[in-house]
Amino acid sequence: MNADLRINADRLWASLCDSAAFGAIPGTERGMCRLTLGEADIAVRHWFVAACEAAGMTVTTDQLATIHAQRAGSDPALPPIAIGSHLDTQPTGGRFDGILGVLAGLEVVRTLNDAGITTRHPIAVIDWTNEEGARFAPAMVASGVFAGAFTIEHALAQVDRDGVTLGEAVAQSGFAGSTPPGAQRLAAHFELHIEQGPVLEAEGLEIGIVTGVQGIRWYDVTVTGQTCHAGTTPMALRRDALQGAARLALAVDAIGRSDPGASLSTIGISQAYPGSRNTVPGTVRMTVDLRHPTVAGLDAMEAALHSALAPIEAETGTTIALSPVWSSPPVAFDDRVIAAISAATRRLGHSHRTITSGAGHDSVYTARVAPTGMIFIPCEGGISHNIAENITPDQAARGANVLLQAVLDYDRAQDG
Amino acid sequence: MNADLRINADRLWASLCDSAAFGAIPGTERGMCRLTLGEADIAVRHWFVAACEAAGMTVTTDQLATIHAQRAGSDPALPPIAIGSHLDTQPTGGRFDGILGVLAGLEVVRTLNDAGITTRHPIAVIDWTNEEGARFAPAMVASGVFAGAFTIEHALAQVDRDGVTLGEAVAQSGFAGSTPPGAQRLAAHFELHIEQGPVLEAEGLEIGIVTGVQGIRWYDVTVTGQTCHAGTTPMALRRDALQGAARLALAVDAIGRSDPGASLSTIGISQAYPGSRNTVPGTVRMTVDLRHPTVAGLDAMEAALHSALAPIEAETGTTIALSPVWSSPPVAFDDRVIAAISAATRRLGHSHRTITSGAGHDSVYTARVAPTGMIFIPCEGGISHNIAENITPDQAARGANVLLQAVLDYDRAQDG
Repeated sequence: MNADLRINADRLWASLCDSAAFGAIPGTERGMCRLTLGEADIAVRHWFVAACEAAGMTVTTDQLATIHAQRAGSDPALPPIAIGSHLDTQPTGGRFDGILGVLAGLEVVRTLNDAGITTRHPIAVIDWTNEEGARFAPAMVASGVFAGAFTIEHALAQVDRDGVTLGEAVAQSGFAGSTPPGAQRLAAHFELHIEQGPVLEAEGLEIGIVTGVQGIRWYDVTVTGQTCHAGTTPMALRRDALQGAARLALAVDAIGRSDPGASLSTIGISQAYPGSRNTVPGTVRMTVDLRHPTVAGLDAMEAALHSALAPIEAETGTTIALSPVWSSPPVAFDDRVIAAISAATRRLGHSHRTITSGAGHDSVYTARVAPTGMIFIPCEGGISHNIAENITPDQAARGANVLLQAVLDYDRAQDG
Repeated sequence: MNADLRINADRLWASLCDSAAFGAIPGTERGMCRLTLGEADIAVRHWFVAACEAAGMTVTTDQLATIHAQRAGSDPALPPIAIGSHLDTQPTGGRFDGILGVLAGLEVVRTLNDAGITTRHPIAVIDWTNEEGARFAPAMVASGVFAGAFTIEHALAQVDRDGVTLGEAVAQSGFAGSTPPGAQRLAAHFELHIEQGPVLEAEGLEIGIVTGVQGIRWYDVTVTGQTCHAGTTPMALRRDALQGAARLALAVDAIGRSDPGASLSTIGISQAYPGSRNTVPGTVRMTVDLRHPTVAGLDAMEAALHSALAPIEAETGTTIALSPVWSSPPVAFDDRVIAAISAATRRLGHSHRTITSGAGHDSVYTARVAPTGMIFIPCEGGISHNIAENITPDQAARGANVLLQAVLDYDRAQDG
């Protein structure tokens, strides 16, 4: 039953260190700049493809240059179980975000090779193009096209800061393939990722069993009062936009705390205008970011936000305009994939909890077209998208072993 | 006793309208741009000097081009009672701020001429150079040098945006005189001014008897938390600088309301950093402006501000750095001048209240070297430093009549 099979922790860590040579930021200990289909990304792709081929895998790419490296299974009728993430990074990113998920897939294959195990399903290791969105918008564009969220024409037409389209970058990279994204059916999509948040570290836990991705709703807020002279306008006659904004900030904070462990709320942008020391602000512009794993939760938070406005307007003499600007619905991962990850985690004896992903991942899109789940490991201080991003070899190994065991469980249990 | 003497309201209003021709902003109904010693200011000074000379006054200027127009009194031993303010305006100012105070002085002299009255003290009408501070910093520079707050060298060395010094502008204006500022002793300084705030209008009152100018203390505030991901950081693990700032805004507001009619508090500048929709702010930079008519009041407000910090820091996990950047002590006007203004106001039957000036005026400085007081009249909506600044002819006339009667009272009662 292969329950005792373990990945090679030293080999996995060596792969992570080797990968970090492509795009390392000079003068930093661990900082990475490996923008999609730039020089470093092309170099790491060649290195990755060579490693996959050396591991006996068949490598293809699709029309968006996503790399699909496949190890054959015993049942030719079954689609592959995919282990996917991304090799691109933020401009000042780290060496683990996305990269761990791809190289852990390679390590799973190498481990199966070493043990002489043939799974029923093929195993595919996928490097999704342009997950970060740092060179081309939107983020997760290749998995998005794969899942039908965008058209390929839309994706190929996206332009970077230098005026280069994603289509041109794909063509020039040498990684353009003929497969239309989405043509390949997947039996499942597993993704191992660093948490990019502080929860597991704070709670001293080794593994996060990700049950889904929270929904997000974004709003623009303008608080309007009356600009007036700070020295001549009595407090009682003021309509101070900043006082309206401050009260709204408290209300937004309370909304984020209303469903502990699930609800999150943030005012990321807040600025008072005209911005003069001795002038009472007439306008404050703010943003609100509400997150919850369920639509019902988001609806309740949005209702609470609307209800907060009138009392603040009445108290401060301001008017508050709230307009939705974007939303992303919650994603629930597949029960069978979650069960496989959960069983593997328990079998391996790792401390764990279920967790909702706060950030977007390629798995958000694959969940639309294939049974999908994710495994989180802690990262130092919860820090990511930052040159300080860090994990330990043990953390990486624990995550990869859960991935290995979960994939083996899923391979035995499912026929999809 | 001249208690029935009244100024000529139509003549005063005509003077105000005539003055407005010098520096009127084209396309606006009442907007003015008459920067210190610029073309329009030089033109209005020639017009004003001619009017003073036509009224029989002797005109001199000092080394800062301040115009001192004097009508002789009956007692050659007495220094002049001054009626002073300024003819310069903000770049997008109005036709009354400062100008009313100077032209009401001219109207008082014309009224005395018409009635054939000779006062004991000479009457001086003064146009203080560069009150607004819009062309040269600081504001109220000529009255400041007059009172010994700055040296004349410091004042003359100030540079406008084009690199012209105040000294060069004075020399080129044709209004440079030989009198050192401050050489002329004043028996008193009266200033009629628009309120530049909404109190008199809101309370339906005709005259404000100004008892002093509030003190001001300015602070810079930096609230420091921890920048983190809005999607992955639980509320309980956040150190959100904006939440610290919001709580501080409420505390500052409460401090401003702690002594109604006296205390004022304002956060004019507030901005969250890094300023990204999905990032919890790690820093908020703010300013705090505290005002009160007494030092004890300012001290109490400052103490309350300091006391507010620790609980907010504890609640939000932030640190708050508060640093004083500037202060201006309160000014108490002279009891005898206040009494003369108060008696005149009551005798004329105008509705009135005592009031503290929130803005700075030349009288802030003259109060250091001469018995000083001010008379406020309402202005439309409390608006000033704005092309919408407005008053009615009746309001102007009421203020000028109080000024006339108060000067006559003071002339009879005092020997200084």
